[in-house]
Amino acid sequence: MKHEALSARARRTAAPPISWLMAAALARPQLISLAAGFTDHETLPVAEARRLLAGLLRSPDSGRPALQYGTTVGDPALRQWIAEDLARRDRLDLARTCPPERLVVTHGSQQLLYITAEALCDPGDLVLVEDPTYFVFLGIVQSHGLHARAVRLERDGLDLADLERVLDRLQRSGELRRLKLLYLVSYHQNPTGATTRFAKKCGALALLRRYERAAGHPLYLFEDSAYRELGFAGGEEPSCLAAPGHANRVIYAGTFSKPFATGVRVGYGLLPAALHAAVVRIKGNHDFGTSNLLQQLVRRAVQTGACARHVATLRRRYAHKARVMLEAMRAHFPPGVEYWEPRGGLYIWTRLPPGVKTGMKSAFFRAALRHEVLYVPGLLCYADDPSRRKPDHELRLSFGAASDDHIRAGIARLGEVMRECVGRLDP
Amino acid sequence: MKHEALSARARRTAAPPISWLMAAALARPQLISLAAGFTDHETLPVAEARRLLAGLLRSPDSGRPALQYGTTVGDPALRQWIAEDLARRDRLDLARTCPPERLVVTHGSQQLLYITAEALCDPGDLVLVEDPTYFVFLGIVQSHGLHARAVRLERDGLDLADLERVLDRLQRSGELRRLKLLYLVSYHQNPTGATTRFAKKCGALALLRRYERAAGHPLYLFEDSAYRELGFAGGEEPSCLAAPGHANRVIYAGTFSKPFATGVRVGYGLLPAALHAAVVRIKGNHDFGTSNLLQQLVRRAVQTGACARHVATLRRRYAHKARVMLEAMRAHFPPGVEYWEPRGGLYIWTRLPPGVKTGMKSAFFRAALRHEVLYVPGLLCYADDPSRRKPDHELRLSFGAASDDHIRAGIARLGEVMRECVGRLDP
Repeated sequence: MKHEALSARARRTAAPPISWLMAAALARPQLISLAAGFTDHETLPVAEARRLLAGLLRSPDSGRPALQYGTTVGDPALRQWIAEDLARRDRLDLARTCPPERLVVTHGSQQLLYITAEALCDPGDLVLVEDPTYFVFLGIVQSHGLHARAVRLERDGLDLADLERVLDRLQRSGELRRLKLLYLVSYHQNPTGATTRFAKKCGALALLRRYERAAGHPLYLFEDSAYRELGFAGGEEPSCLAAPGHANRVIYAGTFSKPFATGVRVGYGLLPAALHAAVVRIKGNHDFGTSNLLQQLVRRAVQTGACARHVATLRRRYAHKARVMLEAMRAHFPPGVEYWEPRGGLYIWTRLPPGVKTGMKSAFFRAALRHEVLYVPGLLCYADDPSRRKPDHELRLSFGAASDDHIRAGIARLGEVMRECVGRLDP
Repeated sequence: MKHEALSARARRTAAPPISWLMAAALARPQLISLAAGFTDHETLPVAEARRLLAGLLRSPDSGRPALQYGTTVGDPALRQWIAEDLARRDRLDLARTCPPERLVVTHGSQQLLYITAEALCDPGDLVLVEDPTYFVFLGIVQSHGLHARAVRLERDGLDLADLERVLDRLQRSGELRRLKLLYLVSYHQNPTGATTRFAKKCGALALLRRYERAAGHPLYLFEDSAYRELGFAGGEEPSCLAAPGHANRVIYAGTFSKPFATGVRVGYGLLPAALHAAVVRIKGNHDFGTSNLLQQLVRRAVQTGACARHVATLRRRYAHKARVMLEAMRAHFPPGVEYWEPRGGLYIWTRLPPGVKTGMKSAFFRAALRHEVLYVPGLLCYADDPSRRKPDHELRLSFGAASDDHIRAGIARLGEVMRECVGRLDP
């Protein structure tokens, strides 16, 4: 007799690669973690949340609905606010491009990612991702029995020529019929910090459209805008929703986790109508609706302007912490180590000279542990794409959760490790 | 070209049968709904939640962790409390039978139901359910491409002789290898209000065990205890965890939604080790953890005793509302209409004389709508089991959300409908 009765999905679903990293960080209090995707601790809006919740729960009239079940699709007033906000930021016609009826509120935008994959993809289907990409999405891909194909990523977003090559290759091999979507973390990407230029978004959508006839069905672009609000260098590219003529191919995912509080877990999605209906039906089976208390809290946070004020604080804070990390890198990293200066988000992507491996079994990683500093190996962020080699000499460094002192000390420690390991390679 | 690219799962996932009922209730303000599974509105713990949240968010020390990401498996102190509570109520050895390491906190117990089905079942697999059962679980079954086989339900729970017949038939047909679990709503069941006696739980577990060799893998019992805390007639059967020698086959699902607040959406599961690991891995992809703010709120509610006090209030309240409904039924329902007196939960299961159909297309249902009263047709609570006929002359009536006046008026209206329709059948 088998000892377990697990499903194929359960057997495919691996522990997240960073669970070991997180356990290590908890077990070793001396360890400085530049690995976690956690947000800044000191700026968490404790007083604001207290005030907003006190207001919400002051009277039964507003308090009871917050403590009762809502609908699966989410609070109407919150969806209205999100629609108006999107329309304003992307200069959209609300009724045509971002109607509240096509929004769904989710338990973090992660849940939207999961359910969208469920709604669109059968085992064996293909998705396109950036090279590198958000590693939790790669976990979903593996869990659902999907395959990912990677598209080269440049400082200003997707390499469109490479996207075309990939699509062309899929068409020739007959695999295009299994392709369902392109997954894009378009603002201050996790892990690289890269932001996709609007012109490239339009180009990607046009390319996808060109290959739809051969695919036999719509090819969607899933725009994960998790870090959109966290830009700190000015300017903001429009979202894919603003691409003329292509809005009905865009799945736009947003969140209040990062701009407000990660412990609140309210995200949302704007989806084409048929897909919206399918996602809401599936969410009905997941949880028949995101906690109303969280939704009402977020609704008050956005309607009162508390969320916008908090975002302004966060931008200053992350701009400062990014600066602290960059200065420490300049002071401590040896020549030959490259890094991308971020204009927002939580991450600095760092590249060692080729040959200096950074994976969890590498000498570099072990040396970093000896020096009590943790990072996310770049390798974890690359899809299992048989047509590409996975670079293994990169690091994702986060300035999100660590204090200024820990950022400085952590980077100094990494600098020592680099001089040890890089020096050994190239004396 | 297909206009959509939906997955097999999305195409299988139907809109929940009661979504139409809920929409109807919203659209017709005169309508009295005895259909909704919502909880009592007036007793929602608005002041308690305000106090607990104010305490939680008073200082950064307790407030910041509540607004930050936690772990996927859930808050350790909350899991510890749940484990101790289960050990106390079911007289279990905590370390052996309900260790906190095998608990997972979920976004309502509904999420546990969904993820457990994902973790155990492949399309084509079988599950056993009570006849009738919780209709949202039937939605999950359909969505995942599973098949349900029903087991006769008596006032005191599963009919064990029927369970044995069903298992035997599955063994003879070779289908036992596809059977994964028995789903049991063991306390004040939705929809019938029936509670399964402890002796029957032990008997069901022993029967499942006997058929494991033929199945080739463990056969689990999923005990959904959503209404356990809502007993108002004294006494409480132990859970399946207390069945000697069988705890490692029990998946126990509990929730704070009903005993505290449905807008808070915190549930939990206690699972055998291998299954626990699989469920946590899958939940990592769903949302990497239930909102920490909700978990900390619930933790304070249980640790301070606020939740227990609230449960005592709820029991009195529901006992009263059940009495109001029963008195109205006695006054208004014609002879020949049977109903089960509940000892807890939110529902009274009502049976019309055979032949008087209650489904959504029936004359009875249309007459009820004309009289501005809504119920859940019993038909919706029966699995698509080719070996059984679905009774279609029953109603699930809820005294959860409606006010006393609405309960009285709604039952009086239903009584009129019954006299019209039942009279016509049997003059």
